[in-house]
Amino acid sequence: MLRIFLAAFVSAAPMLAVADPLPSWNDTETRDRIITFVETVTDPDSADYVTPPARIAVFDNDGTLWAEQPVYFQLTFAMDRLAELAEADPSILTSPTLEAAAQGDVQAIVDGGHDALIEILNASHSGITVEEFQVAVADWLQTARHPDTGLPYDQMTYQPMVELLRYLRDEGFRTYIVSGGGLHFMRVFAEDAYGIPPEQVLGTYTATTYEADGDAPAVIKAPGIAFVDDKEGKPINIERTIGRRPILAGGNSDGDFAMLEWTTAGEGPRLGVLVHHTDAEREWAYDRESPIGKLVDGLDKGPDLGWVIVDMAQDWDRIYTGAN
Amino acid sequence: MLRIFLAAFVSAAPMLAVADPLPSWNDTETRDRIITFVETVTDPDSADYVTPPARIAVFDNDGTLWAEQPVYFQLTFAMDRLAELAEADPSILTSPTLEAAAQGDVQAIVDGGHDALIEILNASHSGITVEEFQVAVADWLQTARHPDTGLPYDQMTYQPMVELLRYLRDEGFRTYIVSGGGLHFMRVFAEDAYGIPPEQVLGTYTATTYEADGDAPAVIKAPGIAFVDDKEGKPINIERTIGRRPILAGGNSDGDFAMLEWTTAGEGPRLGVLVHHTDAEREWAYDRESPIGKLVDGLDKGPDLGWVIVDMAQDWDRIYTGAN
Repeated sequence: MLRIFLAAFVSAAPMLAVADPLPSWNDTETRDRIITFVETVTDPDSADYVTPPARIAVFDNDGTLWAEQPVYFQLTFAMDRLAELAEADPSILTSPTLEAAAQGDVQAIVDGGHDALIEILNASHSGITVEEFQVAVADWLQTARHPDTGLPYDQMTYQPMVELLRYLRDEGFRTYIVSGGGLHFMRVFAEDAYGIPPEQVLGTYTATTYEADGDAPAVIKAPGIAFVDDKEGKPINIERTIGRRPILAGGNSDGDFAMLEWTTAGEGPRLGVLVHHTDAEREWAYDRESPIGKLVDGLDKGPDLGWVIVDMAQDWDRIYTGAN
Repeated sequence: MLRIFLAAFVSAAPMLAVADPLPSWNDTETRDRIITFVETVTDPDSADYVTPPARIAVFDNDGTLWAEQPVYFQLTFAMDRLAELAEADPSILTSPTLEAAAQGDVQAIVDGGHDALIEILNASHSGITVEEFQVAVADWLQTARHPDTGLPYDQMTYQPMVELLRYLRDEGFRTYIVSGGGLHFMRVFAEDAYGIPPEQVLGTYTATTYEADGDAPAVIKAPGIAFVDDKEGKPINIERTIGRRPILAGGNSDGDFAMLEWTTAGEGPRLGVLVHHTDAEREWAYDRESPIGKLVDGLDKGPDLGWVIVDMAQDWDRIYTGAN
């Protein structure tokens, strides 16, 4: 319906035609529904008009804005960093888990579950200032390459989502990341990769301490995770940090279910967007059985809740920002 | 020096004269130092120019942006709310502390210290959705009046500080509240009173839970304080939430010391501003011995650290927004 209307509009008033805001999206119903939503909430004459301050859009990162296979990129960073630290001082590898991590043995880490992950994060992410940590992340992004694509990790952002973020901002939205990934990790590349400034990045965080004893007061990353920004943690963190319920939420896994549920249950126009990884050829195909990015509830309940399910293979003309 | 320069400038180019950005500030060195700082960091030709995204200014609330005597206004709200809840159901007053609170016995609460405070907050601030809590706060602000001034509490904001916030925003700063007061409490009035939107209000917060079992998913205030936004908590919360070190910080008590210390220890131009309560006639005079708003470290070390100490009696022509 909308496309017919748009076509009529464009031929009647060609001077008003503007550049396509989503050039990497195929011309499908998915794209139409997103554009219709944005046009509706930004139309002052619409009953569903939303004022700019309330145009909050939140997005998961891993698997939604950039890829997350074969493992979360931050885990790769942690393992690379541990290997680097161990080169200078092998005595830091105080357990089989840390030894496996420094050797890049992903399977051992995955098998070790949550405890192994925490141990690696504590050993690789703590005891330094936030600034020092972020220099290490920036250095890693300069040199590390993805094993399958050969791309820098921050070039494995999804170009259609980068365009969606920009389109939303052009239409008066504020765009946020709300991710299970590390807050301090993501802030290093979020502005360049997505146009999202540090204060609009929410994520899992390690405890931090304030230390003013030395030469210069600093905030230090301490061992231990202080907050996990996943599942119910997402609406909790959004409420606490942003203080408004978003009108648009995007995710790709069941870790995003509560965020989309809370967002779309609000009054007035709401949009939930789920990225479904269906493209084994250009990316990866996974959902219900995947240890990473597991998606069951979203597929079962999302459509009835009115969520848009993005079929990567069908809906996206291009995948990565860094490669055509 | 600056005033001489300004005078020359204005007489040479009267068309460029603009309205006084700080009309409620007396023409003292304090005012000059603040204006000089702002003019310096916003002057593209200055070596100390700061780009707009880095122009972050953070302010404590109680005693800095509004009054805090004879007790923190939020405690008055908590006691009033407890009295109201007990009217409907007296059985909620399960301890002498809660009974004293419902009777408005401030001294008993102050004597009960931290434990009494937590008990009152838990009984009056939890078990409801954030939205319900905020309706209760808004209702209270409509009807409650300060015992000494007779003013609505949200009219006891300091007019000179309201002007400073607006001036900073006009000059491209983003203004934040970073307060020991309750996050959910302050967000109710911060936008109207200070022009500060919800996402720029940081404060102490109760634990919250996400509950999706009932009719509508909601974020619920749970018993217990999850984070105290005071002392070292302030730089920690700023780093975590904003992700940038501010270039200007304002406070009034030793609870703000770490925030001002961290802010002004950064590289480049920085400004710390301490409001010193010196005006027993128009407001209250208190510092080193006060149980509320105790100020020792700031007075002892602030001047050497280059902080501006605002002498309320000398520097402010007007105190409250709600009264001349």
